[in-house]
Amino acid sequence: MNASSQQVGRLYGVGIGPGDPDLMTVKAIRALESSQVIGHFSKRGHAGNARRIIDRFLANGVTELPFCYPVTTELDRHGECYRSQIAGFFDESAEAVRAHLRAGRTVSVVSEGDPFFYGSYMHLHVRLMGEFPTEVIPGVTAMSGCWSIAGVPIAQGDDVMMVLPGTLERAELERRLSDCNAAIIMKVGRNLPKIRAALAAAGRLERAIYVERGTMADGRTMPLADKPDDAAPYFSIVLVPGWETIA
Amino acid sequence: MNASSQQVGRLYGVGIGPGDPDLMTVKAIRALESSQVIGHFSKRGHAGNARRIIDRFLANGVTELPFCYPVTTELDRHGECYRSQIAGFFDESAEAVRAHLRAGRTVSVVSEGDPFFYGSYMHLHVRLMGEFPTEVIPGVTAMSGCWSIAGVPIAQGDDVMMVLPGTLERAELERRLSDCNAAIIMKVGRNLPKIRAALAAAGRLERAIYVERGTMADGRTMPLADKPDDAAPYFSIVLVPGWETIA
Repeated sequence: MNASSQQVGRLYGVGIGPGDPDLMTVKAIRALESSQVIGHFSKRGHAGNARRIIDRFLANGVTELPFCYPVTTELDRHGECYRSQIAGFFDESAEAVRAHLRAGRTVSVVSEGDPFFYGSYMHLHVRLMGEFPTEVIPGVTAMSGCWSIAGVPIAQGDDVMMVLPGTLERAELERRLSDCNAAIIMKVGRNLPKIRAALAAAGRLERAIYVERGTMADGRTMPLADKPDDAAPYFSIVLVPGWETIA
Repeated sequence: MNASSQQVGRLYGVGIGPGDPDLMTVKAIRALESSQVIGHFSKRGHAGNARRIIDRFLANGVTELPFCYPVTTELDRHGECYRSQIAGFFDESAEAVRAHLRAGRTVSVVSEGDPFFYGSYMHLHVRLMGEFPTEVIPGVTAMSGCWSIAGVPIAQGDDVMMVLPGTLERAELERRLSDCNAAIIMKVGRNLPKIRAALAAAGRLERAIYVERGTMADGRTMPLADKPDDAAPYFSIVLVPGWETIA
């Protein structure tokens, strides 16, 4: 009876911004400071950017809860095997969070950028939101970090802006790039040659900007035309500014 | 000779987030604290949300520099008269900032949300960036604030997300809403009945969420289906979540 009458903990989904720890919000910092447990996602064998950003909150007796993605790069993302592995991974991660929340601990799960904008946190959120009090703290997205570092006003007035995954087919990318004012292409990595071809076909290569590791100390920005088709990190971004008239 | 050899001031474009002052970043706060002059946009006769968010930075001898939009609601936004009035307004505002920068003062111009994402600051940025050292500090966008408050994961995986101004024609809105996973419709206001009709025609009304004054103390969130077609503030937002499968 004791366990069931105990108050459950609160779950925060905390957006920690695009890389520079000073781009965390006051609210995010408060959530981390008030948490007994801090969860973060990473790939096996990599410390992960999220962990680096929140490094200073992981001292002094806080429980660190790392969620290590299963190695899935050799599987087809749309295949049944990938989907069941990844769903199982989120189930297990949610279960680990659930145990802490049931024990009355405050848990923050951090997301680079914004939790509800392509963030892994949302998979835990939907599994836990019915059982526990939750609060999502929005963060500065990677794309905002990138266009600010690049000094590129991205959209104004009645501009239509599209966020496109670089994983789309070439023809589909071209069609969409021809039908918007501003575009952000995420998940660049190995898709860079295809993205470049789609931009050229849509007549939009000239103004496209390539940003790698935006707002990190080792970030780089250049016209996409100057970037060779060699290794681009998965999390690099291509910006196509919509603002054609300067007024 | 004295004046010309004097060091010029630094210009910050500061994103101050969607409304809750605690959603400002550490970097934004530092920029405001280091500024002798703080500029902000507002409509004539309204204090403006931006000023309210940064209220506590406007004490202790800082020079406040308000930029009051000319009254333009009676003019056609695409007409020559509107455009020349608004360009003249940005010219004058930039000139006021320029005078402070030339005198060696640090100037922060604040934007609700993110400065380069539909923000007025960008009009000053392009007028001043060649002459002075500038730095743009990204902020949490209004849309991030809205989907977080509403508890709605907006996009995941390979979702295509569109940002659409509610000012688009009904048929154009319908076409685009039928051709994306997630959508954010900005500038709702008087366009609400048209937006509702476009969502219904695209078969996407059911999951649409209406958010008014997101992250402000008096903010409201509801299914769009429950929101009457009466007065909606210009800055309210409609969210169409892209994440159809919960996994």
